[in-house]
Amino acid sequence: MKKTGDIVLMGHGGGGSMTDSIISGIILEELGNPILDKLDDAACLDIPESEIVMTTDSFVIDPLFFPGGDIGSLAVCGTVNDLAMQGARPRYLSLALIMEEGLPLADVETIIRSVRNASEHAGVTVVTGDTKVIEAPGAGRRSAMFINTTGIGVRDPNVDVSVSNARPGDVVIINGTIGDHGTAIMNVREQLELHSSLTSDAAPLSRMIMPLLERVPGIHCMRDPTRGGLAAALCDIAARSTCCVKIDERLLPVRDEVNGACSILGLDILNVANEGKAVIVCAADDEDAVLECLRGDELGRESCTIGKVSDSPAGMVLMETYAGGERIVDVPAGIDLPRIC
Amino acid sequence: MKKTGDIVLMGHGGGGSMTDSIISGIILEELGNPILDKLDDAACLDIPESEIVMTTDSFVIDPLFFPGGDIGSLAVCGTVNDLAMQGARPRYLSLALIMEEGLPLADVETIIRSVRNASEHAGVTVVTGDTKVIEAPGAGRRSAMFINTTGIGVRDPNVDVSVSNARPGDVVIINGTIGDHGTAIMNVREQLELHSSLTSDAAPLSRMIMPLLERVPGIHCMRDPTRGGLAAALCDIAARSTCCVKIDERLLPVRDEVNGACSILGLDILNVANEGKAVIVCAADDEDAVLECLRGDELGRESCTIGKVSDSPAGMVLMETYAGGERIVDVPAGIDLPRIC
Repeated sequence: MKKTGDIVLMGHGGGGSMTDSIISGIILEELGNPILDKLDDAACLDIPESEIVMTTDSFVIDPLFFPGGDIGSLAVCGTVNDLAMQGARPRYLSLALIMEEGLPLADVETIIRSVRNASEHAGVTVVTGDTKVIEAPGAGRRSAMFINTTGIGVRDPNVDVSVSNARPGDVVIINGTIGDHGTAIMNVREQLELHSSLTSDAAPLSRMIMPLLERVPGIHCMRDPTRGGLAAALCDIAARSTCCVKIDERLLPVRDEVNGACSILGLDILNVANEGKAVIVCAADDEDAVLECLRGDELGRESCTIGKVSDSPAGMVLMETYAGGERIVDVPAGIDLPRIC
Repeated sequence: MKKTGDIVLMGHGGGGSMTDSIISGIILEELGNPILDKLDDAACLDIPESEIVMTTDSFVIDPLFFPGGDIGSLAVCGTVNDLAMQGARPRYLSLALIMEEGLPLADVETIIRSVRNASEHAGVTVVTGDTKVIEAPGAGRRSAMFINTTGIGVRDPNVDVSVSNARPGDVVIINGTIGDHGTAIMNVREQLELHSSLTSDAAPLSRMIMPLLERVPGIHCMRDPTRGGLAAALCDIAARSTCCVKIDERLLPVRDEVNGACSILGLDILNVANEGKAVIVCAADDEDAVLECLRGDELGRESCTIGKVSDSPAGMVLMETYAGGERIVDVPAGIDLPRIC
């Protein structure tokens, strides 16, 4: 169907047979299923009576391919993880592509294959989609691709997990090292050649989170520390639960090469994006069960407790530093790292 | 909150307080509702047991503002109409924005206000969203915005409308003039100054379609002739219903100024996009009821029958021309008009 060297042309966005060559030749080839195969403009879903959860995310990451994944796997992981963090089992995804003219069709194919692999791992089905093509970028810039995935999940009505539910006395747990995604992206984008082992942690968390919620249904909060990093996730929990989150710098799991990259780039590791991590807040009594359950999954082997929740100063995040001092953890107004997800 | 002259900056995409100034200061201001206000990464939906329909569409229209609407109203109409064409009552929308740096915040605000107005008209609620910012375009090009809307609707299980359901003997109806959207966009984009009355027909069709389905639940097919125009819609019906659709050029409702614009631009009116039209295929016995019901709605005043369905040549669309001849109606491989939706 597709010849090597073929590129996306404006005509691929026209809704005619060129568009169809992408839809049938690439997308259905990889993602075909009884619902998507109908190619109706909208998909009928089969959802038993339960709480339905919806989330949407657009992905504009630059570059499209990076160590540990590509925009396709990221687009599935990001949306699946948003559902999982709400305690919802991901079921259905929509997939909308915006492609700049000039993008190699072989890249489109690779990305769609990543969508398939990540979807299979996460247990979601792509049921509807859309493709658009926009003009090629100016000289000197590679053609970009933007992906929107919108996800539908179902939640057990007994689960009551929310970023507003942290309580004094709770513990704060993370399922592994921080800063891997953001530093891996910067390393390839800026051609820093810092360390070849810098790899994104992008992964769909639903397979780890669903058994956890069955084992410990009383978990209070879950949040994925993506854009804005761990700092943004914790500040959100502190603000919306009206409590203080206090973490200990010495407990934060960080790979040496990630620490090194942050130093060189002048980044605060707390603001660097992750794409396969969950911050979990639970009662101290549940701490052992949560850690044991997380560590039983390949995505949670390095799970550990990084802090606790107290009542004041309400709405703030504090960090006990290596030096033994204490500093306020805040969210920068803008960004350190654009186009990270 | 917002000062005139303010523009979108990369920092608005960072997930920090600058992002929040857009979310709280513009989006919640316009679209706030109990579900969206929670600002959770995913929204819990309240859907009674019924058939759930999902659709997604990205909008990349250039320019963002045009006579008859803007990208905001279009993004609601396009997705709502895809649901309505499946016989589903639109209920929930997600809204994901990708903005190029440099976009005036006043434009963002105007567009979000259009989203609100169109959503209210269509009876849908925006329940979750996402914002991303990408680098400014090169010199000489205005900053663009891309919007993805994904819609959830519910369908009465008794409705069985599908583009595969056309049958010989059926009639083909449209709810008004064709070609208005595409020619209006070309007129402003190319600064043709052809005719000041060229106006997009963008409109949410659900308020017209839902009562129609209650009155005539046995309608066979519905299709909105958007990208690819009436030709693409009819070819899809003919192919998937394995029948012949035969239209009569003399019956096609076309405004004089639209006809004139098509002549000057060298466009086939049948390929020009519409954003507020529905092609409806029903049994001949239902023709009068359908026309009467459509004409009772402001969006259907000019409804008329444009053709009929026969058994052969199966899969083909034919048009009896003004000259009395017959020609094959086909879908071009690429596009005449890029960035039209």
